[in-house]
Amino acid sequence: MKKNDIGVAGLAVMGENLALNIESKGFAVSVYNRTLKKTTNFLETRAQGKNIFGAYSLEELVQTLERPRKVILMVKAGAAVDDFISRLIPLMDAGDVIIDGGNSNFHDTICRTEFVESRGLLYVGAGISGGEDGALNGPSMMPGGSKAAWPLIQPIFQAVCAKVGNAPCCGWIGDNGAGHFVKMVHNGIEYGDMQIICEAYHIMRELLGMSAGKIAGVFARWSQTELSCYLVEITADILGYINDKGQYEVDGILDAAGQKGTGKWAGISALDLGAPLTLICESVFSRCLSSMKDERVLASKAFNKAAPVFNGDKDAFIEDIGRALLASKIVSYAQGFALLKAASEHYKWALDYGSIAMMWRGGCIIRSVFLDTIKEAFQNDPTLNNLMLAPYFKQKLEASLPSWRRVASAALLCGIPAPALCSALTFFDGYTAANLPANLLQAQRDYFGAHTYERANAQRGEFFHTNWTGKGGATSASTYSL
Amino acid sequence: MKKNDIGVAGLAVMGENLALNIESKGFAVSVYNRTLKKTTNFLETRAQGKNIFGAYSLEELVQTLERPRKVILMVKAGAAVDDFISRLIPLMDAGDVIIDGGNSNFHDTICRTEFVESRGLLYVGAGISGGEDGALNGPSMMPGGSKAAWPLIQPIFQAVCAKVGNAPCCGWIGDNGAGHFVKMVHNGIEYGDMQIICEAYHIMRELLGMSAGKIAGVFARWSQTELSCYLVEITADILGYINDKGQYEVDGILDAAGQKGTGKWAGISALDLGAPLTLICESVFSRCLSSMKDERVLASKAFNKAAPVFNGDKDAFIEDIGRALLASKIVSYAQGFALLKAASEHYKWALDYGSIAMMWRGGCIIRSVFLDTIKEAFQNDPTLNNLMLAPYFKQKLEASLPSWRRVASAALLCGIPAPALCSALTFFDGYTAANLPANLLQAQRDYFGAHTYERANAQRGEFFHTNWTGKGGATSASTYSL
Repeated sequence: MKKNDIGVAGLAVMGENLALNIESKGFAVSVYNRTLKKTTNFLETRAQGKNIFGAYSLEELVQTLERPRKVILMVKAGAAVDDFISRLIPLMDAGDVIIDGGNSNFHDTICRTEFVESRGLLYVGAGISGGEDGALNGPSMMPGGSKAAWPLIQPIFQAVCAKVGNAPCCGWIGDNGAGHFVKMVHNGIEYGDMQIICEAYHIMRELLGMSAGKIAGVFARWSQTELSCYLVEITADILGYINDKGQYEVDGILDAAGQKGTGKWAGISALDLGAPLTLICESVFSRCLSSMKDERVLASKAFNKAAPVFNGDKDAFIEDIGRALLASKIVSYAQGFALLKAASEHYKWALDYGSIAMMWRGGCIIRSVFLDTIKEAFQNDPTLNNLMLAPYFKQKLEASLPSWRRVASAALLCGIPAPALCSALTFFDGYTAANLPANLLQAQRDYFGAHTYERANAQRGEFFHTNWTGKGGATSASTYSL
Repeated sequence: MKKNDIGVAGLAVMGENLALNIESKGFAVSVYNRTLKKTTNFLETRAQGKNIFGAYSLEELVQTLERPRKVILMVKAGAAVDDFISRLIPLMDAGDVIIDGGNSNFHDTICRTEFVESRGLLYVGAGISGGEDGALNGPSMMPGGSKAAWPLIQPIFQAVCAKVGNAPCCGWIGDNGAGHFVKMVHNGIEYGDMQIICEAYHIMRELLGMSAGKIAGVFARWSQTELSCYLVEITADILGYINDKGQYEVDGILDAAGQKGTGKWAGISALDLGAPLTLICESVFSRCLSSMKDERVLASKAFNKAAPVFNGDKDAFIEDIGRALLASKIVSYAQGFALLKAASEHYKWALDYGSIAMMWRGGCIIRSVFLDTIKEAFQNDPTLNNLMLAPYFKQKLEASLPSWRRVASAALLCGIPAPALCSALTFFDGYTAANLPANLLQAQRDYFGAHTYERANAQRGEFFHTNWTGKGGATSASTYSL
């Protein structure tokens, strides 16, 4: 008798939905949950009549699987993953596969891959995006880890994932932590996309004095343009939603946002790898600032800033805001892909940027037509240094630039915080500047720490020191200094 | 016979200078270096005729010290510190003190304190700032770790540190990693100070078309105002420095800056603790961007932006730049102290912010009169939520605001990157905004992930979910979701 195709351990909503999704594609699934009642409940309700077998121990889960066995953990990131791994290893055999489908930190996934492989098994850290709905109906899936596991899991993963046309939103990402790293950057980009949409909304609300319903109309229109994406669509829905009191629901929601960690991990990785990820970091910090509601209310009373006044052409300015949004989004994705590039070189993952863009086209929160053009940009030029230099994006940036400058400068002049739109523009201006003021910075470091500097008209790698004060002598810093 | 007062292990320039400084205050010092020749060389040159004893093994170093023994490691952060600790522990006795005077990561210092204390010894992680000159003539010193060590090292530390008036720029910071954490934030602030000075210079150079010499004059004037600080002073020196070819030296320096890690650690800690540190993160990323010189030159050719044009009153705009600089600096310090506050609560350090400001007033790179006013602000109101709300700083911010807005918006309009000045202003505007657009963000999260939200007119902690589409049902997210 043929045994089951895959085991799912962990039956929170994501695990349940993924199990149902896999079964619906013709696979036989074993499921296990630490709290056994949850398993019984699942079998008696959503799993009833389906090709889903309930296991009441990990031993049973493993024994009911066809070899090489595949078990996907759908449990909370952290200690629970390590716990399952240590309990599964003695039950499984060489060549079996443990898959972590949660939002694990990629550093952990690097360690776990090495550990599980040292025990003769295969390990996969798979980023899965799309929330509960995606898990059930087709998520974006980003598996990485033990390369030998890919042919074993590919039929299942590419059957259950989202599709755009016939193309699956799932492909092999790379060794060890690559899948979870790419998922982390995806989440960072999601933070950025949400933040710039919020800033556009905020400018229309505060500077142009528009109601939620009016702004909903603008986003609905934008969702028919190159700005079209899932998040713009739902923003139009949300802003237009009138509750049973006849009020715009969004107006009653407290402006204090939560966060779950992957956005901040993206920022931390960017700092660590020296890859500027300014827009996403501003987005993460904006959430932190939003959560300080009481402190902000007090500060607003202390400063009592003048209410902003807008005297220009409103309709034209709304068009400006749309272009500022597009340009900022281009910068954000350019920064995100530059971070992927820095990580790919550092961790030797040989990431395929075009494929990654393809995987994000469907199933996940940042899905959009925009990602098609990114995929094309990398396919047309796999050596592309930065997305902003690809012809399509370069042309869009140039066309948006006057509008973008007007919106960002108006926000700063009128006191409306638009940290992500502004930081995107300052980054663009820095990236396209042949000369930055870091010559002075290098001189400062040489002045107070004798750190030496390079010269513009000398060979790179040749270092100079100036005795700026006439006191310090010509000695430059040793390799160790505080 | 009385033995020596302290041992210094590691004779790079910082170690040599610190040993000479300690000896000059009347203490007897034993020194040790792994490469023995370095010790001999030191004894035969700079240490000649001084009360400095050269030890040619760690055993000898320890044996020549008075009990309880104190050994300060002046070695490269990382493995070398652990190596010295593991070699010193068997040689020392209960109650002896190991001090790490390097730029260690505070996480490491937390672990090492626990480890060394578990062996019955005391451990101190001491941030030491001021470079080689400070080490010799009086650095800013930030010791933390085993509290019982403080009375033992205090006479030496407070003798050798910088003084402002009679006040030593050194005090006990707090448990385990507190000293190195505070030093890390100091370095982050240093990154920020340098960056905003560079941006002010850049705007004068690119937008106002001023020569280095003219800009030197502006900084020289500013160093007589409330902007007075070491970094502004040396900037005036640097910009005015004419080399033997009759050219401003700064004009020939390559605009590609290096970094040493503590700035990025500050950003990482801020993300980790959820404390917005936008200006310092922008400063770290600006250094990363500056180092991508070749890529920037290519991008500048691809985009070929119009040269900036300034049509206003130059002298008035220079005054505006000075006020923008001051306001940005206030924001940067406010963010830095808010990070200290977040860390103090998280790690239970009970940091004394006024004392910390005092320690930074002298000996270190960020020394300034500005820190006197910070010290006073925290002394006048130890419960101060944020530095921006202290009367002096609030008044300065309000007075600077129109200028600051003009400078930041002009930079964005004219394409001159001023990421730190702009992010400081967007942060100020966010911090002083009673309402941010995070209500929309929370609605988005509730829409796609059923994450629920709070309402403005309901109790905090009460969570709501809206069935935005009419399709998803009223089920909100479980505690685990991707």
